[in-house]
Amino acid sequence: MKKELVRLLSLWASPYGLRVQLALKAKGIEYQYIAEDNKNKSELLLSSNPVYKKVPVLIHNETPICESLIIIEYIDETWPAPPPLLPSHPYDRYLVRFWSNFIDQKLIEVMGPVFSGITAENKSVVWKKGQDEFAQMAITIERGAAEMELRGLIYVEGKTCLGYMDLCFAPYVALFGAVEELFGLKLPGSEKCPKLQKWIQNLLTNEEVKLTLPDVDKIVKHIKEAFGAE
Amino acid sequence: MKKELVRLLSLWASPYGLRVQLALKAKGIEYQYIAEDNKNKSELLLSSNPVYKKVPVLIHNETPICESLIIIEYIDETWPAPPPLLPSHPYDRYLVRFWSNFIDQKLIEVMGPVFSGITAENKSVVWKKGQDEFAQMAITIERGAAEMELRGLIYVEGKTCLGYMDLCFAPYVALFGAVEELFGLKLPGSEKCPKLQKWIQNLLTNEEVKLTLPDVDKIVKHIKEAFGAE
Repeated sequence: MKKELVRLLSLWASPYGLRVQLALKAKGIEYQYIAEDNKNKSELLLSSNPVYKKVPVLIHNETPICESLIIIEYIDETWPAPPPLLPSHPYDRYLVRFWSNFIDQKLIEVMGPVFSGITAENKSVVWKKGQDEFAQMAITIERGAAEMELRGLIYVEGKTCLGYMDLCFAPYVALFGAVEELFGLKLPGSEKCPKLQKWIQNLLTNEEVKLTLPDVDKIVKHIKEAFGAE
Repeated sequence: MKKELVRLLSLWASPYGLRVQLALKAKGIEYQYIAEDNKNKSELLLSSNPVYKKVPVLIHNETPICESLIIIEYIDETWPAPPPLLPSHPYDRYLVRFWSNFIDQKLIEVMGPVFSGITAENKSVVWKKGQDEFAQMAITIERGAAEMELRGLIYVEGKTCLGYMDLCFAPYVALFGAVEELFGLKLPGSEKCPKLQKWIQNLLTNEEVKLTLPDVDKIVKHIKEAFGAE
């Protein structure tokens, strides 16, 4: 087998980049990590992802692959040796694709105004609205977590490996800690969201997740700087 | 083999619903079409897609499957008999996923303000901006069409069957006709976008596409009514 060259352009705080790191680690693929700087994007990033100009980009030999969820499918199909990242049954594959898309879209929709409101006069109003939408989102994810737990699609301590849904979701766990500290945005507790809370607790016991997720304090500092808050 | 019950909840004008119809036809799957009414959503739609409450929904036996691009992957994996909808090579699969996602996201981003501006005082300003972004989008898609044509991923007259990328894109062709008539939004011609224009012309020779796409005049009338224009 010829030696593969795998490079990952990413940012330490990017949940999208972190999920690709987790996927590469889950598959045991050696890769070179190239740290990007959002304020000064490299020529390699701009030429590898001319459409979006964003991390993460996986460069497999000389071929760039963009968009984190699509990258993970590419990784699973290019290196099919176990462990599989996606499940094999079409309905299970549907479920993890549906919920990872939902979570990505919804979080941008809910968090965009909250982040942008960080310097606004009426930020408490923005944050209150964000809190309601954030809680509503969690209650929706709870339904997905319940079905996926039943079908063995999300990580439970003692299982051998993280799957697609875990890779997609785990990086948000650190972000949730940061938005709670910054904006008071808090996920509903175990009474309202027992499956979601259990899933999060399970993910936090996983060694690879613990090693990969950045520190909440560091994310808080980063968000404040990026959005110009004092 | 037990008899399958396949139902599709859709709207005649929905490009997302039309691509699922094209996928089912390409696979030769018998299905029951259930026409929804956006102003009076059925109980079946609301209970089948409680997260988004939107068409299309494929109901396979009793199991609802939502989100058009994910539905097409589900169809291809559930009925793997030829013709395949997605290509087999991981990089080809990446390309069609990347470009179908790009086109869906970008069209919403560009067309949203244009449609909403239909009753605005300054609609000519909105439409001018829309025209520039629409042309820019087409030039980006041209790059994708060139690479996908080289790799045999898009329909060329004489090929036997439509593939994933064609199913995703073909329904927009009728929409492009309508937005040209309504807003003067015009795709760049063959000098700037030769591969894209050739792809569109090829799609319009396909019998299944011709049979499935709604009439441009009917779409124009529908958009005017939906957005309250006179």
